[in-house]
Amino acid sequence: MPGHQPADGEQRGEIMSKTGTGNFFEDLRVGQVIKHATPRTITVGDVALYTGLFGPRFAVQSSDAFARAIGYPRAPVDDLLVFHVVFGKTVPDISINAVANLGYAACRFLAPVYPGDTINAVSEVIGLKENSSRKTGIAFVRSTGCKEDGSKVLEYVRWVMLRKRDEKAEPPGDHVPRLPEAVLPATLGDACPRIERAAYDLALAGSPYRFGDYEVGERIDHVDGVTVEEAEHQIATRLYQNTARIHFNQFVEAKGRFGRRLIYGGHVISLARALSFNGLANAFHIAAINGGRHVSPLFAGTTVFAWSEVLGKAELPGRDDVGALRLRTVAAKDRPCADFPLKAGGEDDPAVLLDLDYWVLMPR
Amino acid sequence: MPGHQPADGEQRGEIMSKTGTGNFFEDLRVGQVIKHATPRTITVGDVALYTGLFGPRFAVQSSDAFARAIGYPRAPVDDLLVFHVVFGKTVPDISINAVANLGYAACRFLAPVYPGDTINAVSEVIGLKENSSRKTGIAFVRSTGCKEDGSKVLEYVRWVMLRKRDEKAEPPGDHVPRLPEAVLPATLGDACPRIERAAYDLALAGSPYRFGDYEVGERIDHVDGVTVEEAEHQIATRLYQNTARIHFNQFVEAKGRFGRRLIYGGHVISLARALSFNGLANAFHIAAINGGRHVSPLFAGTTVFAWSEVLGKAELPGRDDVGALRLRTVAAKDRPCADFPLKAGGEDDPAVLLDLDYWVLMPR
Amino acid sequence: MPGHQPADGEQRGEIMSKTGTGNFFEDLRVGQVIKHATPRTITVGDVALYTGLFGPRFAVQSSDAFARAIGYPRAPVDDLLVFHVVFGKTVPDISINAVANLGYAACRFLAPVYPGDTINAVSEVIGLKENSSRKTGIAFVRSTGCKEDGSKVLEYVRWVMLRKRDEKAEPPGDHVPRLPEAVLPATLGDACPRIERAAYDLALAGSPYRFGDYEVGERIDHVDGVTVEEAEHQIATRLYQNTARIHFNQFVEAKGRFGRRLIYGGHVISLARALSFNGLANAFHIAAINGGRHVSPLFAGTTVFAWSEVLGKAELPGRDDVGALRLRTVAAKDRPCADFPLKAGGEDDPAVLLDLDYWVLMPR
Repeated sequence: MPGHQPADGEQRGEIMSKTGTGNFFEDLRVGQVIKHATPRTITVGDVALYTGLFGPRFAVQSSDAFARAIGYPRAPVDDLLVFHVVFGKTVPDISINAVANLGYAACRFLAPVYPGDTINAVSEVIGLKENSSRKTGIAFVRSTGCKEDGSKVLEYVRWVMLRKRDEKAEPPGDHVPRLPEAVLPATLGDACPRIERAAYDLALAGSPYRFGDYEVGERIDHVDGVTVEEAEHQIATRLYQNTARIHFNQFVEAKGRFGRRLIYGGHVISLARALSFNGLANAFHIAAINGGRHVSPLFAGTTVFAWSEVLGKAELPGRDDVGALRLRTVAAKDRPCADFPLKAGGEDDPAVLLDLDYWVLMPR
Repeated sequence: MPGHQPADGEQRGEIMSKTGTGNFFEDLRVGQVIKHATPRTITVGDVALYTGLFGPRFAVQSSDAFARAIGYPRAPVDDLLVFHVVFGKTVPDISINAVANLGYAACRFLAPVYPGDTINAVSEVIGLKENSSRKTGIAFVRSTGCKEDGSKVLEYVRWVMLRKRDEKAEPPGDHVPRLPEAVLPATLGDACPRIERAAYDLALAGSPYRFGDYEVGERIDHVDGVTVEEAEHQIATRLYQNTARIHFNQFVEAKGRFGRRLIYGGHVISLARALSFNGLANAFHIAAINGGRHVSPLFAGTTVFAWSEVLGKAELPGRDDVGALRLRTVAAKDRPCADFPLKAGGEDDPAVLLDLDYWVLMPR
Repeated sequence: MPGHQPADGEQRGEIMSKTGTGNFFEDLRVGQVIKHATPRTITVGDVALYTGLFGPRFAVQSSDAFARAIGYPRAPVDDLLVFHVVFGKTVPDISINAVANLGYAACRFLAPVYPGDTINAVSEVIGLKENSSRKTGIAFVRSTGCKEDGSKVLEYVRWVMLRKRDEKAEPPGDHVPRLPEAVLPATLGDACPRIERAAYDLALAGSPYRFGDYEVGERIDHVDGVTVEEAEHQIATRLYQNTARIHFNQFVEAKGRFGRRLIYGGHVISLARALSFNGLANAFHIAAINGGRHVSPLFAGTTVFAWSEVLGKAELPGRDDVGALRLRTVAAKDRPCADFPLKAGGEDDPAVLLDLDYWVLMPR
C-alpha cells in the first residue's frame, strides 16, 4: 500500500508512524498499479449539493422524467461530479506531494453513473521523467473509475510534477508516454445510451439548437458571471473527498506562494460547464476531455465568466441519435467574455483561468 | 421558444447567437404561454440542503414517521422549497430583464410534493402595461408548477417591471388583471391530505398550541435572529436553478446600485418561515400566499429577525381536521422584533425587509 | 410540555405568548422526562451534506458496497451525525438558557442508523445542583436517541450550567449523579454488527493498520489543517436543527463576550474526526465517548489541526472481529500538531480547542 512509508523523523521509538505521507517521485515505478481509498456511493444527496454549488441546468441530469423519456433509466449523475469523485480518490496517493498539476489527456466517460452506484478508483503509472534539478520529476498516471462490479465509468491520464523525498534517489530512467492530441470521435458515446430524439423536448431542455445548428468556428459568450466563496469551494472539494491541503488550510497558505487557499482546478471546470448552459443547453453529456490547462489560479472573491468555441464536429459511427461537438471552453476571472479573451500579445490573457478542450454530445 | 432572439450586435457573420437573452417587455403578449426549462426531480438531497440552509423544524416535513402517522404517505417537501424551484424556472424567461419584482398574488399550493417528483413550470402572460417613460413596462404572469403527469402543485401570479429592448417598440395596450386581495379560505387545503388529529403528537411537533389557541390580532415575536452569508444564499438560489444575475455576480454588482450582490427575496421568506417555528410550530403547511412585499433589500452579513400577526382565522368547508390562520409575517434586518416593527411615522420602518401575507394550516 | 411558560412581560392582554423560552434551572426536577421536538428522518441527503462539510473518508460510511461486504446491510450514517442530530433536539429544552456546556459522559452508540431511519430524542433530568450565587445551577441530563420503533441508537449524559429565571426560586436540593470515568469495554459494540474481517479491504479502507498494530501510548499527528468558514458551521448546525442562538446571530454576538458567533462544539469534534482518518483510517466506528472538554472556543477563520493518542486497548467479550481503542483526540487552532500540544506549564496549551476521550472499533 503506497503512502505509508515512515516520513523522516516521524518514527518514535519502535512505533512506525501511522500517518500516510503520500508518494514522492521516487516511490513510483512505471507499471505500478495503485488501488485508491475510499470507495464512494454517489447518491441523490451528492447530486443536490452539486446543484447547489454550481447550478447546472441540463435537463437530462436534472430530471428523472426527462431522462427516462429519452432512454435513460433515470437521471444520470453529472459527468463532472463523477470526474471529481474519481480524481479526489487519486489525490492522497498521486498528487499530495505535487508541485503542480501539469495536464490532462485521453479522458473518456465510459458508462453512465446513477445514484446508488459505488465508485472506486485505480491508477497505473505509465510514465516517469526526472527533472534536471533532481529535486522533482514528472509522473504520468492513467486513472480509472469503476463501479462495484468492476465496470469502468471513466478513465483519464494526468501528469504532475512531484517532489522527491531524497534528492539523491536514483532516477527511474525516462519513460514519456505518447498521448493523443484528442480523443477519437469513434471512441465516444459509451456513457450515453441511444436516445429517443423525438422525445427530447427542446423547450424543457432550454434551447432550440441541435447538433446541426452549430458550426465549426462558432463562438458563444455564456454571458453570466458567478463569484466564488471560500465555503463553496471547500464544501465542493470535500464532497469529492479530495484532500489536497492547499484548498483547505489558510494557516499554512497564508505563508505560501499565494498567501491564501488555492481553489481546486476542477471547481473552475464545473463553474464554466454550468455557465455554458446559456448557449449550449443541449450539450447534455461530456463524452471526453481532450486536454486542459489551468492557465492561472482561482481564489475566493473572484467572479468567473466563460465562453466557448466549436473546434470540431463529428458523427458517431452507427449512431444517428447524437453527434459530437468538440469545444474549447475558456473561463476568465473578473472579466466578461463578450470579446472572447484568450491571448494578449502572444501570451495568455492574464484574465484566463482555464482553457478546456472536450467533446460533448448533442441530439441530432 | 422565448428568449432566443439575437441580441443587438451579437450576430457574427451568418451565425445566430445561441445565447438566450430572455424576454424584454415587447416580446410578451397577453395570452402567451411559456413552457420553462429545466424540469427538476426534487430529492431527499434537496430537502437536506434546504434544512442545512434554513433550519426548519416543522415535524411534518422533517419526519417520514410523523407524516405517515397523521395521514401523509411520507414527509412532503417543504412548501417554500417547491415555490422556489418553480419560481427559479420562470426567471430566464420572465424576469431576467426585470428592473424590479413588484408583487405576488393568488399563490395556492395545490398538491403535496414528495421526494422523487419531477416539477415543470409554465407561465401565462395575463397582463401588460407599458410605463409612461416607454422604457419599461409591467408584465403580469400566472405561473404554474406541475408534476410530470401534468397535475398542478402550485400556481401564483407575479408582476415585474421589465426593460424594453427597443424604446420605440409599439405599446401592447393596457391589460391589468384583477387580482384577489387574498385567497379565499374555501379554496385552501388541496395540498394537505385529511390528517389524523389524534395522531398529531404535540410534544414531537414542538408546541401545545392548536388552531383554536390563536386569536385574530395576536402578535408573536419569533425571538431568534440569523445572520446570512454570501455562500448560503448563493447555494440556496442555485439549488433552485434560479439564474438571476444580481444574486451571483459581484464583479458586475460592485458597480451597480447597491455595490454588492442582492439576496434573492425568497431567501428572506424561507428564513422568516424557519424562525416562525418558535411560536407557530404547528402551522405545518403553507396553503396560500395572499401577497407580499420585499420592503427593502437584504445583503450578506445582515441578521434577520421576524415576527407574525394573526390577521384572520377560517374553517375549511367539510374539514374538521385543520383550520386556516391568515398570517402577516414581517422580517427585519439587524433589529430584534419584540416591539413588532412595521411602520415608522407613516413610512415603512427602515429595518423591515419583508411583509408577507399568507395562509397556514394548523391541526384543530 | 416544557419551555412554554410565558416570559416576563410577554403576556399581552389575555393571550399567552406562544413563543417558547426554554427551561430555566428552576423549571427542572430530578426524574423529569422531556420528549423533544422535532423528529427527523435522516437521509442520504444529510449524509452528502455532512461529507461536504467535513470530508470524512471512512470506507464503511462512504460506500454501500464496502459496508455490505463486511456485514452491514448498507453504509451506516456517520456516528457523529447521529450524535449531532440527537443533541440538536435537546437544545431548545435543555440548553437554550445555558451559560456553559460543562461536560459529557457515558455516551454509547447502541444501534447503527441507516438513511431512512427517523430519530427522536428524550431526556431525563438525573441531577441538579444550584450554584452558591443562586443565579445559576448545574443540570445533569441523560439524553437518548431512538428510532421510530422506540429502539435506542444513542445515549449520553451531559451537564450544563443554566440560568435561573428568578433568583429567589427555591433550590431543588443537591443531586449529583455518579458518572463513570469511562465507558466499560464490555458494553461497547452494540452499534456494530459482526464484521467479516476477511472481506475488510485494507487498500480500499486507506490504511494497512489493524487493531493489533496500535500500541497504548502511541501518538499520531493527523497532519492536515482545515480552515472553518461561517457559512460552513451555520449550515452544519442547522442541518442538526440545533437552534442555539450563539451560533447564528452576529447582531447579538457582536455585543457579546466574544464579539462574534461561537461555533458549535460538535463542529470541532467532527472536524477532528475527519482529520483523524490520516492515521486512523480503520477506526471505522465510534462506539462510545467517555468524556470531552471544549478547552477553548472556535471562531470562523481559524484553521483546525488534530492529533491523537492511544489511551487504551480492549478486546470485546465474545468478539474476535473487532477490538476497541481508547483514544484521546486533541484539536488545536492555528497550530500544527507534530509536537502534540496539550499542556503548557501546567495549564492548557492556549491553542487547544478540544480534548476528547472516546472508544473506536477497528478490525482485528
